[in-house]
Amino acid sequence: MLDSKIRNQLEEIVGQERLLEKPEELICYSYDAYLEESMPDLVLLPVTCEEVSKIMKICSSYKIPVTARGAGTSVCGASIPIKHGIVLCFSQMNKIMEINTKDRYIIVQPGVVNIDIQKALEPFKFFYPPDPGSMNVATIGGNVAQNAGGPRCLKYGVTADYILGMEVVLASGKTVRFGSRNVKDVTGYRLSGLFCGSEGTLGIVTEIILRVVPLPETIKTILVTFDDLDDTARSVSDIIGAGILPVAMELLDKLTINAIEDSANLGFPREAQGSLLIEIDGVKEACEKEMQKVIEKVKANNATSIKEAKSDKERDELWEARRSAFGVFAKLAPDIFSEDVTVPASKIPSMIRKTVAIAQKYGLKVGILAHAGDGNMHPMIPADKSNKEEWERVEKAFDEIVEAAVSLNGTLSGEHGIGLAKTRFLPLVMNEDSIEFMSVIKKAVDPDGILNPGKFV
Amino acid sequence: MLDSKIRNQLEEIVGQERLLEKPEELICYSYDAYLEESMPDLVLLPVTCEEVSKIMKICSSYKIPVTARGAGTSVCGASIPIKHGIVLCFSQMNKIMEINTKDRYIIVQPGVVNIDIQKALEPFKFFYPPDPGSMNVATIGGNVAQNAGGPRCLKYGVTADYILGMEVVLASGKTVRFGSRNVKDVTGYRLSGLFCGSEGTLGIVTEIILRVVPLPETIKTILVTFDDLDDTARSVSDIIGAGILPVAMELLDKLTINAIEDSANLGFPREAQGSLLIEIDGVKEACEKEMQKVIEKVKANNATSIKEAKSDKERDELWEARRSAFGVFAKLAPDIFSEDVTVPASKIPSMIRKTVAIAQKYGLKVGILAHAGDGNMHPMIPADKSNKEEWERVEKAFDEIVEAAVSLNGTLSGEHGIGLAKTRFLPLVMNEDSIEFMSVIKKAVDPDGILNPGKFV
Repeated sequence: MLDSKIRNQLEEIVGQERLLEKPEELICYSYDAYLEESMPDLVLLPVTCEEVSKIMKICSSYKIPVTARGAGTSVCGASIPIKHGIVLCFSQMNKIMEINTKDRYIIVQPGVVNIDIQKALEPFKFFYPPDPGSMNVATIGGNVAQNAGGPRCLKYGVTADYILGMEVVLASGKTVRFGSRNVKDVTGYRLSGLFCGSEGTLGIVTEIILRVVPLPETIKTILVTFDDLDDTARSVSDIIGAGILPVAMELLDKLTINAIEDSANLGFPREAQGSLLIEIDGVKEACEKEMQKVIEKVKANNATSIKEAKSDKERDELWEARRSAFGVFAKLAPDIFSEDVTVPASKIPSMIRKTVAIAQKYGLKVGILAHAGDGNMHPMIPADKSNKEEWERVEKAFDEIVEAAVSLNGTLSGEHGIGLAKTRFLPLVMNEDSIEFMSVIKKAVDPDGILNPGKFV
Repeated sequence: MLDSKIRNQLEEIVGQERLLEKPEELICYSYDAYLEESMPDLVLLPVTCEEVSKIMKICSSYKIPVTARGAGTSVCGASIPIKHGIVLCFSQMNKIMEINTKDRYIIVQPGVVNIDIQKALEPFKFFYPPDPGSMNVATIGGNVAQNAGGPRCLKYGVTADYILGMEVVLASGKTVRFGSRNVKDVTGYRLSGLFCGSEGTLGIVTEIILRVVPLPETIKTILVTFDDLDDTARSVSDIIGAGILPVAMELLDKLTINAIEDSANLGFPREAQGSLLIEIDGVKEACEKEMQKVIEKVKANNATSIKEAKSDKERDELWEARRSAFGVFAKLAPDIFSEDVTVPASKIPSMIRKTVAIAQKYGLKVGILAHAGDGNMHPMIPADKSNKEEWERVEKAFDEIVEAAVSLNGTLSGEHGIGLAKTRFLPLVMNEDSIEFMSVIKKAVDPDGILNPGKFV
């Protein structure tokens, strides 16, 4: 509980309307898309950098934990206020400050929803490539804090690749700015890059300059099915190995396809063991030529059907189906354990075989869903957390999946982050000195440890 | 001068052959491609991470300055041992450790020359995009330390965009590793990104995992000339504004072209006021279509000639000529003041007009050379440093060029770095708290300030 004197100082900054303190309000900010919960003492909804700075000065002087939050879609628990204190929710600090497609950038506040950036750019025939599954609700501040990915990051890269500059309020309340409107800028340390992916543990991002990209002339999307999951996986590594770079190459197995069909009834092939949603973009003639090569590769791997989206509507439906996967899984069981390991592309077939074997060993169902082109696997295990015996098996399977990925030169997380979910796995991929070095940075930047405490650092 | 006890400890690590201490040897490491000089006390040529770690432990305990160096091509003085001490030269730590084009990465030691990475990848039909002007001699360790750019970074991005992971020896001698072989990896802080561009002030990079890219099917290169420099500049912003993204778009003015012709006699059009070297790559049909659009834009801006490279040989010649620009300028005067400011693409015409006006105001010659597509300008002023009166005018012009770039939302350096050359300009683009924040990071990571001391932080 916050001292009423401090509470009143904070109210003076944001006003009564943007300070939430009733239990029924606070509970909405006690969880995100991960499996834990923890109540904040107070929620503040700032609308300017100055407000954030004033809030941080108070929190700093009283050493109050501060957890920044956007839409709360983190699947690693990054936005859960595990040490209580204050949640700074950026949903009302959501202005687009400048759109400049001539110089290929956009300046946004952290609360802008990813899809609203896309909508704002569309009239200019531009887009912002990173497209996390949650893009219809997730805010750009959260995307930046987690260095979010998404299907089309295969061709276009992740959030960090689009950050030109940012404004950040430090734990002390000081405001710093790094980078600029320029694509090429080597002025001092690359600190925008450090704040990106730091999960709110180093500073509070209050403005972001993002690089944007012209919309491609043509987009071609196909859905390919296979009778064998191994053939599906091998198609992916064959396409990548052949030097083709699709926008996206999404792999869905039988369980995932059927969960989607149960919910949306889009005519996805229920009997297929595996399917690939493949998209190519660019100049029309190049798209056609590359798609032809892709089709050769999937045919050589025994594709049983190849269906091309004939219109934007058909394409949107395919993508909506893919995006719904996380949601529809939620209908299979009270809880979902969603993984996010990544392996080099050539290791995808092995990783899928290992994942299936681990699930079988522990008597669990597993849905394989992957941004397969960049090796980013999202196996999903539907289960019931209240069933203690079952949940223990889930956790053991989870451990072994992570270990399997690491043994294949993979890593703990491709795009979801570490947060609460994966801190204990860090020693699998980092030596002691490297983990300690992260703490050195954290202590230097946030000496009292008030920024998103209790997370991976 | 180093104490002989310390010298002997260091000799035990690298052996007599890889320890240089004679004045005639040391002098070779007292300068780089910038304008200052400072003698090191000792030069060591390590060949393993373990050696670097042992050296750093000794330097750390005796607080000896350590400046890492590759080929010494820095044009901002980043590799000059301005506080003396030890130069760690990586020219002999130059092994390619692994090439894996299936998973699209290469693992290299810091002393590998950029061009040798290209040569190693060519048989696999892959390449490593960043191509600084010095790529034939500059080492990848230096490229990483400076976050090097180059002409084709317009389409492909800079060095930082290609770093998947790295091994770094800290000031303390501890060895840390960040990142992995995976394109998508959000495991902990993005520290590879912080070391990249830190100019050797935070740690010594001893191994780098780089992303590599398939060679394009087709490359088309044209040389376009104009009677007017303004037309030349406007062509660039028109092409970028039209949503076309060439690999490179290099602008050369009359002075630069004539300097090249005097030296290489390649048939460049001596009478043109401005010229553009434009390259497009990709699938053949897409290249042709995009090049057609480029040609429309330059014709609309009164291009006087358009010459296409008809063979790889002709293309290589055009690029060799462009790459020679820095060298041939050296023949015009004893010294060259080479700038590296960057402005948003739409500001290129203004920036060129301002640059020419500033040079005229101070009675100086200026050659305009630019990676124009990304707004990265390299105006070059040939002058004589020993002529004090002239040099004062050069320095005043230099100040005004930087200020002009900043006034156009530009920045201090696009790819050359800050080093010794531009520290004093930092307040133009950063507030006090931001500059102080860089020192906070520096002090946390290198508390005794032994890593490349005397530079921008």
